[in-house]
Amino acid sequence: MKALVYLGPGKRALAERPKPAVELPTDAVVRINKTTICGTDLHILKGDVPTVATGRILGHEGVGTVEEVGSAVSHFKPGDAVLVSCITSCGKCENCRRGLNSHCIQGGWILGNTIDGTQAEFVRIPWADTSLYRLPQAADHEPFVMLSDIFPTGYECGVLNGRISPGASVAIVGAGPIGLATLLTAQFYAPAEIIVVDVDDHRLGIAKRLGATQTVNSRDGRAAERILDLSGGRGVDAAIEAVGVPETFDLCQSIVAPAGVIANIGVHGKSVELHLERLWSQNVTLTTRLVDTVSTPLLLKTVLSGRLQPLALVTHHFTLTDIARAYDTFAHAAESRALKVVISSSHG
Amino acid sequence: MKALVYLGPGKRALAERPKPAVELPTDAVVRINKTTICGTDLHILKGDVPTVATGRILGHEGVGTVEEVGSAVSHFKPGDAVLVSCITSCGKCENCRRGLNSHCIQGGWILGNTIDGTQAEFVRIPWADTSLYRLPQAADHEPFVMLSDIFPTGYECGVLNGRISPGASVAIVGAGPIGLATLLTAQFYAPAEIIVVDVDDHRLGIAKRLGATQTVNSRDGRAAERILDLSGGRGVDAAIEAVGVPETFDLCQSIVAPAGVIANIGVHGKSVELHLERLWSQNVTLTTRLVDTVSTPLLLKTVLSGRLQPLALVTHHFTLTDIARAYDTFAHAAESRALKVVISSSHG
Amino acid sequence: MKALVYLGPGKRALAERPKPAVELPTDAVVRINKTTICGTDLHILKGDVPTVATGRILGHEGVGTVEEVGSAVSHFKPGDAVLVSCITSCGKCENCRRGLNSHCIQGGWILGNTIDGTQAEFVRIPWADTSLYRLPQAADHEPFVMLSDIFPTGYECGVLNGRISPGASVAIVGAGPIGLATLLTAQFYAPAEIIVVDVDDHRLGIAKRLGATQTVNSRDGRAAERILDLSGGRGVDAAIEAVGVPETFDLCQSIVAPAGVIANIGVHGKSVELHLERLWSQNVTLTTRLVDTVSTPLLLKTVLSGRLQPLALVTHHFTLTDIARAYDTFAHAAESRALKVVISSSHG
Amino acid sequence: MKALVYLGPGKRALAERPKPAVELPTDAVVRINKTTICGTDLHILKGDVPTVATGRILGHEGVGTVEEVGSAVSHFKPGDAVLVSCITSCGKCENCRRGLNSHCIQGGWILGNTIDGTQAEFVRIPWADTSLYRLPQAADHEPFVMLSDIFPTGYECGVLNGRISPGASVAIVGAGPIGLATLLTAQFYAPAEIIVVDVDDHRLGIAKRLGATQTVNSRDGRAAERILDLSGGRGVDAAIEAVGVPETFDLCQSIVAPAGVIANIGVHGKSVELHLERLWSQNVTLTTRLVDTVSTPLLLKTVLSGRLQPLALVTHHFTLTDIARAYDTFAHAAESRALKVVISSSHG
Repeated sequence: MKALVYLGPGKRALAERPKPAVELPTDAVVRINKTTICGTDLHILKGDVPTVATGRILGHEGVGTVEEVGSAVSHFKPGDAVLVSCITSCGKCENCRRGLNSHCIQGGWILGNTIDGTQAEFVRIPWADTSLYRLPQAADHEPFVMLSDIFPTGYECGVLNGRISPGASVAIVGAGPIGLATLLTAQFYAPAEIIVVDVDDHRLGIAKRLGATQTVNSRDGRAAERILDLSGGRGVDAAIEAVGVPETFDLCQSIVAPAGVIANIGVHGKSVELHLERLWSQNVTLTTRLVDTVSTPLLLKTVLSGRLQPLALVTHHFTLTDIARAYDTFAHAAESRALKVVISSSHG
Repeated sequence: MKALVYLGPGKRALAERPKPAVELPTDAVVRINKTTICGTDLHILKGDVPTVATGRILGHEGVGTVEEVGSAVSHFKPGDAVLVSCITSCGKCENCRRGLNSHCIQGGWILGNTIDGTQAEFVRIPWADTSLYRLPQAADHEPFVMLSDIFPTGYECGVLNGRISPGASVAIVGAGPIGLATLLTAQFYAPAEIIVVDVDDHRLGIAKRLGATQTVNSRDGRAAERILDLSGGRGVDAAIEAVGVPETFDLCQSIVAPAGVIANIGVHGKSVELHLERLWSQNVTLTTRLVDTVSTPLLLKTVLSGRLQPLALVTHHFTLTDIARAYDTFAHAAESRALKVVISSSHG
Repeated sequence: MKALVYLGPGKRALAERPKPAVELPTDAVVRINKTTICGTDLHILKGDVPTVATGRILGHEGVGTVEEVGSAVSHFKPGDAVLVSCITSCGKCENCRRGLNSHCIQGGWILGNTIDGTQAEFVRIPWADTSLYRLPQAADHEPFVMLSDIFPTGYECGVLNGRISPGASVAIVGAGPIGLATLLTAQFYAPAEIIVVDVDDHRLGIAKRLGATQTVNSRDGRAAERILDLSGGRGVDAAIEAVGVPETFDLCQSIVAPAGVIANIGVHGKSVELHLERLWSQNVTLTTRLVDTVSTPLLLKTVLSGRLQPLALVTHHFTLTDIARAYDTFAHAAESRALKVVISSSHG
Repeated sequence: MKALVYLGPGKRALAERPKPAVELPTDAVVRINKTTICGTDLHILKGDVPTVATGRILGHEGVGTVEEVGSAVSHFKPGDAVLVSCITSCGKCENCRRGLNSHCIQGGWILGNTIDGTQAEFVRIPWADTSLYRLPQAADHEPFVMLSDIFPTGYECGVLNGRISPGASVAIVGAGPIGLATLLTAQFYAPAEIIVVDVDDHRLGIAKRLGATQTVNSRDGRAAERILDLSGGRGVDAAIEAVGVPETFDLCQSIVAPAGVIANIGVHGKSVELHLERLWSQNVTLTTRLVDTVSTPLLLKTVLSGRLQPLALVTHHFTLTDIARAYDTFAHAAESRALKVVISSSHG
């Protein structure tokens, strides 16, 4: 089969690889119909993720059709339409039993990381019963590709951890796909104010269209000042970090109101300075989270009921044969204006 | 001043009464600009509420302008535009300190009950600092009349107690003003399904327009069956009782899913049969609540941000001089198709 | 092997039955070292539980040693010391994934009900990875027999649902094994007052020794009055029903304070009268629950740390050969003063 | 009257000052019977708290007797025994109404800071109804001095924010009075493991006596390693910072388990380095909090019921005349082995 393979820092190729097979009774093999590329895949390609070995098939997002199941798989059978979760969960360990699937003792984020991933014609999914989600056979499956990772991530790490509630004021720092997924799911809770911050006016325009009540371009370094103005000097109830660099984290510290939350979503490569000399008495909460995908069933319902429209984030389409161009488009988002790119199998 | 006075079972009159004055340092006197009539006012008129003495000025809802304040009132001054809460809260007692304002040791629901109410040109409000809410001077104040009682009631007793959350399935039994206020505020939480049940097709039509995903006319006694069908046999996550009779409570018992909630809003005049022989193992929660109005600040924000449109429930307008006709219209809602009627002062 | 078999209403016998074997890859077979008898077993014998067929081996509690595991069991191996949960949980279905193990689509309470149970030398446990709990090899295993059912039941259905918290006032109605398990685990949360109610002075004496701050004998019908006196007329924050008859449920309604909780644990055979005509405005919560055993890992920790002493509830010991006498002793608790009886295998 | 007055950095004196009087209708004047000294008072004396003006009477803790009340005070009268809260709360502002008393718009921590405090014969308390708590006339009042500040602080900022629960593992970093108050109130929730960390073996000995399951002397810089060992490499569910310097905060970052909490209590003078490059994926929560004293009623109940014994923290006694010596004793705790020192009025 065809698969996108990591060949060491800066190198990748669409290569021919053997089709995976069921190895353990709890495995399934899924024929991928659509997949996408995540910011993390770009990090891997830069060589920033040491757990990814040369030769690994990348990708942790996708929808497809069950091809084969192991003897202990009871919830799925060949032919079922499924969503692949970016988090593989055994459903049995201490962590999975408390909803901390991201820290599943043997699973977690392993697809396209420590085992082969979804940017391929087929993928093997361990603990299929608790790592796949059934899709309605008839529906258009493209929106669901967005539910493998970015929507649960924005919703769990940003919206739930940010304790967004009716009437609240929220700032989302970063209007990339994750920030926008946060923006869309934040609206599940009717906040009074959602301020979106970015340096790219095009993305801020999209944010405005997708429900931001205010947008702030932070290029001039005066974002904190303007957000405090917008909130009458008080700051926001929830400051959501969706970038992953010290500057944006710092902005969050400057704008969070007393008793507010800083919900970190960004993947950080270095430490940050935390202003405890001021924050110790501000009754704030700071949260971090690798997505657990415990909200996937709920998000499926909101898509099926029409409440959530994930396609709003899809800007480009490619076929698997053309995945090199998909990577280029996604990697140069400022020019291409890409948010999420969808890659369809040839057999799709 | 003019005021609507209760004269014993079945009797009321618009009478001339002395203008109230500040009696305690924590009092304010408010000039009422707009008020409305509540189902409870009709109960009082039937003689069903023994705490209401003959001669009482009725009404516990309204917006107006502060006329005079006591020496210990620090948050309001004459001329301020204010919302009168249906719950009077001292802010100091054990119950108020934990948000149980409805059971304020000296306050609670006293307006138009044990002290004179708002269906008058002026009203005295005890503990004004914690029983009034500031309104923006410039805004149209009519929507806020709906925030004295029905919106906090629907939201706190129905939506919050019903633990409505994204993707949830909800049934609201009763499409009167309270049921519809519940319907509107339930949408703060993006439930996947909101089924509204009533015997009146006109009201069900309104429910549909205001966001119900399904409506069920229960006249034929088969509502439970149909709701179970709509939910694939599972029942609903939240069954909200907004009527107050044994039949509607019983319907809620029949349709609540395992681990679901029955949130009672209705004012009940008699006991009901609780099917513990079946429910003991169903992991359900049943809640009751007299509104605490702790959500009033939040609801104000959702109205000011445009997220909540309370005027959707206002069907008729009268002046205080004409309040007799307002009562007749509201009391015969089936014919008049009244939901909430707004009564404006002549000086408004 | 020897097993206690249900032979229709009023009839049981210790019989010879084939040793169970692994049937599905997710099964384990456990050699039972110690088991016990539950009030539910007595209900079954009265013919009150129609799901139990003639010929069924009874029992849903026990500790033992893993004898054999299916090919998909990954957390246990032969020789492991284990606790058998009264709730069998697949860990995969919609309900198990949200912690509602009691309503596991294929599992739930099935042991000694729809499949053969633990009052035998061996038992087959479906979905062993998520239905068994590892015990330390070295420890005395007898205390853990109490963790199969009564401690999770008292803790989840009574203490957690009752929202017991530091400084709270609690009444536990019923001082049988479940009521006493509730009493012991309620003390995890430092309530200020725990009033235990029963008709049996002997059991009330035990309650006093196990931490009740007050006891009330309800035989004279004046329990409500006395509990209200003890709470200064206010009632209790949590009223826990641990009997299962209308009278005790009614007592709970009479003594719950505004904003309090009635947490039902009792298995009810008929409906009760719910006084909504009074409670509608009392801001109370009523909960029901079949135990989910989600707290088993936590309870294991509290036993291992010495914080919880389950043996306080064990009054009698028997061997499996003598289980008929164990049943008689347990069934006539008023005379025998039995709380929990432990039945050891001969090979133990 | 006599009062301890701040005279600029490094200087204080017991001076003669005019007895305070009621200034506003919501004020009370309290005759102080017992007071104590807080670590914050030492910070003030070092000149670290710029809001404290020269001439200020220090102290924000104490019990006493109401001497005089303003016309709007309704819950207290002269002669009532009262506890003074370290947080003054108007009960009316947006923040007080949501339990954020620490950020009361006009109040908060003002006693012995921006208004005169309790280390005097008398003190004026603004918003007396919501800033004082009634004590039983008959009881020994000394234990309650500990409820003005350290017990609510340990409980709210450490135990509640740390989400301590039955079976949890907890590390408390710092065995000073606040750390020990946290240790005592942590036991309200039956954690399985409470590890206390300090550099002073004497204080660790006290911690052991007061309920620590393990103690770790961190002087050798290997505390993190040892705590990880004690928790099987996993880390602790709650790491509570009760010192206020970068080193102890850093220790908390090293020992918190995935999905755990770092609850900061310490008053920090400088920023800290937050290891987001590691923690971003650890699903941790970090909280800060200036005590709100919303738990004071609950803590009073636990003292009255005998569940909490605050005197365990009182090591020395002085009279107000001798307060200079009390300060010296408290400031040199390593030598004096002081935890909390109680200062009684001469008239007590």
